[in-house]
Amino acid sequence: MTSAPLTFYGFWRSMASYRVRVALGMKGLAAQEIPLDVLAGDQFKPDYLAINPEGAVPALVEGDQPALTQSTAILEYLEERWPDPPLLPADPRGRARVRSLCAVVVSDTHPLLVPRVRAYLREHGFSEEAGSAWSTHWMTRAAQAIEARLARDTETGAFCHGELVTLADICLASLFTLGKAGGFVLRDAPTIEGILERCEATEAFQQAMPKRQAPD
Amino acid sequence: MTSAPLTFYGFWRSMASYRVRVALGMKGLAAQEIPLDVLAGDQFKPDYLAINPEGAVPALVEGDQPALTQSTAILEYLEERWPDPPLLPADPRGRARVRSLCAVVVSDTHPLLVPRVRAYLREHGFSEEAGSAWSTHWMTRAAQAIEARLARDTETGAFCHGELVTLADICLASLFTLGKAGGFVLRDAPTIEGILERCEATEAFQQAMPKRQAPD
Repeated sequence: MTSAPLTFYGFWRSMASYRVRVALGMKGLAAQEIPLDVLAGDQFKPDYLAINPEGAVPALVEGDQPALTQSTAILEYLEERWPDPPLLPADPRGRARVRSLCAVVVSDTHPLLVPRVRAYLREHGFSEEAGSAWSTHWMTRAAQAIEARLARDTETGAFCHGELVTLADICLASLFTLGKAGGFVLRDAPTIEGILERCEATEAFQQAMPKRQAPD
Repeated sequence: MTSAPLTFYGFWRSMASYRVRVALGMKGLAAQEIPLDVLAGDQFKPDYLAINPEGAVPALVEGDQPALTQSTAILEYLEERWPDPPLLPADPRGRARVRSLCAVVVSDTHPLLVPRVRAYLREHGFSEEAGSAWSTHWMTRAAQAIEARLARDTETGAFCHGELVTLADICLASLFTLGKAGGFVLRDAPTIEGILERCEATEAFQQAMPKRQAPD
């Protein structure tokens, strides 16, 4: 399938931007990344709000079509539009398992860690230490929930679901590879550790790392 | 396709349980609902943790197979397993738009409102009033973001995406129909209001309402 040029609006250290970057890399797709500085408020400038009225990254633009937004929707789109190599299993129950693991990250956990939420807490009495404790609490809870499932389920292999990278690994690494880089200490999660090691040895994950995107 | 009996573990007033209940109704599927009392901690009892080690609702069990968890994963599974009537558009860009609208609810907003988060805030100095203000703040932000997109996009019709109910409407109603029932005042969102009215006039949405599930 021919494809229009892809433009990707991201923030270098954003977990959601990282997820899209890894998926693009796994699919062998090149996208021009336009970096926004979310901490400086670039996402609320009129030019960007015209692209994504929610004022959030990431957004993916294909040719001159309207932007696609929200990392989960973008990941599913990439999977439908460029199915090879697959990032979801073929069977509906396997797909549900992968999507459920993704949701522990992208619904239960990551939304609690984003800059706008941390800012709200700061403005309402949370000290810097209390804010860090908040993030650590939810990441620890996610690690326990995901480790319990991965350790129990027979579908777990070298990666979250069998022997190939799926969206679940991309979500897992977005939370914990980036979380560890930010100082989070992952404990008592040997299954997650093993999967992260294999992700971190994979080219698409390496290229998506924040340090590769950071401005000089 | 023949199907094994469905058992659904939910909490009567949970937004995520409501989403699954509406989707089951739209698909014409009957499921036996096992009510858990999340405020009393039923989700952490050993019997339930064996079903869902994350200790969260909803969970859907088909016959004697392992439970499916996380509302988004369950919704996608129902769509793949029982495609008629469809709750996602046929084209990938339309599907991405619907999933993106869903994510504003299920990722950006709902996770901030759940009992475990409200409890954490209470235990860390938020008064009852501050907790309510927190929820109102994030719901208001969601309403603004969603209204802006629905009002702008030509795909918006009687429902979020055209003239038929999609997962986006189910997610929208889970946040705002239930939010309004809980005292949230939706302002300056005429497009959302119109869509909610049409959802609330639909049998599957009516049957899923918390008041139909509440214990006597």
